[in-house]
Amino acid sequence: MTDVVALLRAALGDAVVTDPAALEALRSDKSGQRTAAPPLALVAARTVEHVQAALRIAHELRVPVVPRGAGTGLSGGAMAGAGELVISTAAMTRILSIDEADQLAVVEPGVLNGALNRELAPRGLRWAPDPASREISTVGGNIATNAGGLLCAKYGVTREAVRALDVVLADGTLLSTGHRTVKGVTGLDLTALLIGSEGTLGIIVGATLALTPVPAGVVATIGVTFPSVEEAAAAAAAITAARIRPAVMEIIDPVALAAILRHLGMPDRAPGSAHLLVQTDGAAAEQEAADALAIIAAHGGDAAMTTDPEEGERLLAVRRAMHPAMEALGPVLIEDVAVPRSRLAEMFAAIRAIGERYSMPIPTVAHAGDGNLHPNLVYAGDEVPDVVWQAAGEVFEAALALGGTLTGEHGVGTLKRRWLAAELGDEQVALQRRIKEAFDPRGILSPGRAI
Amino acid sequence: MTDVVALLRAALGDAVVTDPAALEALRSDKSGQRTAAPPLALVAARTVEHVQAALRIAHELRVPVVPRGAGTGLSGGAMAGAGELVISTAAMTRILSIDEADQLAVVEPGVLNGALNRELAPRGLRWAPDPASREISTVGGNIATNAGGLLCAKYGVTREAVRALDVVLADGTLLSTGHRTVKGVTGLDLTALLIGSEGTLGIIVGATLALTPVPAGVVATIGVTFPSVEEAAAAAAAITAARIRPAVMEIIDPVALAAILRHLGMPDRAPGSAHLLVQTDGAAAEQEAADALAIIAAHGGDAAMTTDPEEGERLLAVRRAMHPAMEALGPVLIEDVAVPRSRLAEMFAAIRAIGERYSMPIPTVAHAGDGNLHPNLVYAGDEVPDVVWQAAGEVFEAALALGGTLTGEHGVGTLKRRWLAAELGDEQVALQRRIKEAFDPRGILSPGRAI
Ligand SMILES: Cc1cc2nc3c(=O)[nH]c(=O)nc-3n(C[C@H](O)[C@H](O)[C@H](O)COP(=O)(O)OP(=O)(O)OC[C@H]3O[C@@H](n4cnc5c(N)ncnc54)[C@H](O)[C@@H]3O)c2cc1C
Ligand SMILES: Cc1cc2nc3c(=O)[nH]c(=O)nc-3n(C[C@H](O)[C@H](O)[C@H](O)COP(=O)(O)OP(=O)(O)OC[C@H]3O[C@@H](n4cnc5c(N)ncnc54)[C@H](O)[C@@H]3O)c2cc1C
Repeated sequence: MTDVVALLRAALGDAVVTDPAALEALRSDKSGQRTAAPPLALVAARTVEHVQAALRIAHELRVPVVPRGAGTGLSGGAMAGAGELVISTAAMTRILSIDEADQLAVVEPGVLNGALNRELAPRGLRWAPDPASREISTVGGNIATNAGGLLCAKYGVTREAVRALDVVLADGTLLSTGHRTVKGVTGLDLTALLIGSEGTLGIIVGATLALTPVPAGVVATIGVTFPSVEEAAAAAAAITAARIRPAVMEIIDPVALAAILRHLGMPDRAPGSAHLLVQTDGAAAEQEAADALAIIAAHGGDAAMTTDPEEGERLLAVRRAMHPAMEALGPVLIEDVAVPRSRLAEMFAAIRAIGERYSMPIPTVAHAGDGNLHPNLVYAGDEVPDVVWQAAGEVFEAALALGGTLTGEHGVGTLKRRWLAAELGDEQVALQRRIKEAFDPRGILSPGRAI
Repeated sequence: MTDVVALLRAALGDAVVTDPAALEALRSDKSGQRTAAPPLALVAARTVEHVQAALRIAHELRVPVVPRGAGTGLSGGAMAGAGELVISTAAMTRILSIDEADQLAVVEPGVLNGALNRELAPRGLRWAPDPASREISTVGGNIATNAGGLLCAKYGVTREAVRALDVVLADGTLLSTGHRTVKGVTGLDLTALLIGSEGTLGIIVGATLALTPVPAGVVATIGVTFPSVEEAAAAAAAITAARIRPAVMEIIDPVALAAILRHLGMPDRAPGSAHLLVQTDGAAAEQEAADALAIIAAHGGDAAMTTDPEEGERLLAVRRAMHPAMEALGPVLIEDVAVPRSRLAEMFAAIRAIGERYSMPIPTVAHAGDGNLHPNLVYAGDEVPDVVWQAAGEVFEAALALGGTLTGEHGVGTLKRRWLAAELGDEQVALQRRIKEAFDPRGILSPGRAI
């Protein structure tokens, strides 16, 4: 194995890092998990050639490789262990061009989502994907996980916002997929296939992103208190069914709300209640907010509405505090199931029942606009206890029974692999592995992860 | 080969068609091309099991299979020749469910796009893809080609409107990909990969479609005459750059306009002029129309605006008459290049220059909202003359030089295969073929087509 490092160093010089503290940090991501031992080495790539050279060596010597962005993933996909080589694109942070006329940006994968959007804002443009981690996660990581966010029910997930990719295959081949044009159907859509592939098919080294205008005009924000989460979910489903398209629609269940308020040191004025947040934007913002308010009232919600940006941000701050509030309680296993929007209330009820059965309160928030729930399973100790895995398994089975899916946006990584075949079926898993082989015949990329 | 037909008949009974007239019709699609001889047989599938049984036999005996919907394709993808078996899904026309709350429809692949949308309209919903062929093409064909249409710059192409697919692989295995939920990232996104795969990866036998509300309120339609197509293109680019998002934005060049007016028996009031059509909808329709009108005036256009639906449809009728007008002139090779929206004027100029060089007027229309142009190469005789292929090749090279692509929506089929490697590069073509092998190891599906 010293051979590998020596070869890498000869080819890549100081881009190869073996400093123990740096390697130690690569044992985990933000999933709260940790591998048994640190990886072999880190290639902190600064150029496409660095990625190519590192992969050529790894391919030749059949060294397993884990691609990594900022390491904010919640599914353990970027965690690396003994004998593995990490290739990080976090230092490839250049924005190569911003084309206002065609509403395109060409970027390196390491640029942070938030940094890119700060460059775009003065031009009235944005890159729509807005994971809650946008200030700390990379565009490359967002693409590799097909990240979603608060806005994606209205503005789409990452897949809808990427036109073309530069990707280095396992053997070091550099490939350009997709096109700068709005449409294009030449050949199989490898760009779409690479998005969400969690580092299993190749390392993304460049991306042409589709930008969208920041909606002009008023933004209306509504904060609502409901006696129960089922009522909040029913109101959200009714808003969708009424063809209103909120930019943001989030539900916070009573357990999560209490924890957040405690964390923020805010008074809990209506203990046991649930919270619904709705934000409308665009030309119909005020009309849509008025229509939503009527539906909310009919469902028994107690609402406050504002068109003041700062006041609106204050209402959203409660939702944004979810992750810190959970982290303050201990290590967390964050589930990421999604169900058809009309089944949200049933899914919340199922989660509560599972929590009661396991005597384990499960604070849950949901992107109600697209039926994506994040049940948080807080535990104690270094490892996820078996009973927590069991409860998580029941949550997943409940989602599947409602026509749902294992993961709406965080990805399968290492954490959810045990349930993969239950959703896809053995034949589809086998097909997915054959496709991976077409990209990576020696199986060196992200082995044992995602698929 | 009679063996094959006998086996098929034993398994499928009257779903197997060998009537010479029926087979004769399968030699062509709407591309104006024709294979040298009719196929072996047609399986007119009525059920998923029919498709599975037919593929099992074809796989076993290594018989090449051509999937077919309504046969309206423009790239020769569904044309079948000697020794090939056609499996048609055109008779699988059921709409299995329409879910208004979750805005989903589950359909068989043979339902016509227009028929589906007529079912949806009373519910205020639609399936957004709207190829000009919507009254005669199938949803399965739309998915297999990732069809676009007039509305897709604003409302997305087929890829954005499909959640899940049922697909039969070459060996008869039935697979379900995707999910009913808005989001989902479990495993590689095979749904996205299948969309636009032109029958090379499997036969689509079912689809879960994402529906969208029909926009409420006024629709504003603007018809504009410009002295030249470059000015029309510059105005369209300026409308996009101004962040206006028209539902429809179409350009008709002077050669095409003259031919259409002649075909419709309408007077040509401004010979040599070009036409721009803009339609805005949604809450900001009137404001956007007013903003567009100002830009059009600044670019020297002579505009008429209406919010009357019938008058608006009359303005669009000119554009819709393009295909019939061309067909009336003779066989047509329809190109389908796309360029970044800001390069539209340059692409029109390049097409005109090529037309002049070859002494061959090339009537051209464009979906200006997404940079997709359809240059029409009219010729005489049964076969595309070499000189027409040469001119088409130059059109394609010009598009590529402007950062464009070979095909925006019609697909590669048989007609555009000669240019595939020029766009994708040899390494990507090789990778695409390896992916096809993962689905279809014996290479029986659509051999010699698309990839
Ligand atoms: C507080 C917090 C909030 C979050 N909120 C959201 C949210 O709202 N929505 C959401 O979707 N996610 C969310 N996440 C999860 C995470 O931030 C996203 O998955 C993000 O996209 C990961 O980006 P990253 O740069 O950190 O990638 P990493 O964590 O480094 O990697 C993630 C995966 O992508 C692969 N990868 C990374 N870079 C590349 C590359 N260049 N080429 C190929 N593969 C690569 C890795 O191998 C790994 O499988 C949140 C995380 C935190 C900590
Ligand atoms: C007048 C006219 C206007 C048109 N306008 C447009 C337009 O605006 N936009 C546009 O995108 N196209 C347009 N087209 C082209 C054509 O209508 C589309 O490509 C359409 O999607 C084809 O559908 P179909 O059912 O006719 O498929 P077919 O022509 O039968 O097949 C097309 C391709 O899909 C494959 N296929 C068909 N069904 C299946 C299935 N069930 N499973 C797997 N593969 C399958 C075939 O093998 C073939 O490769 C137009 C055509 C005409 C004649």
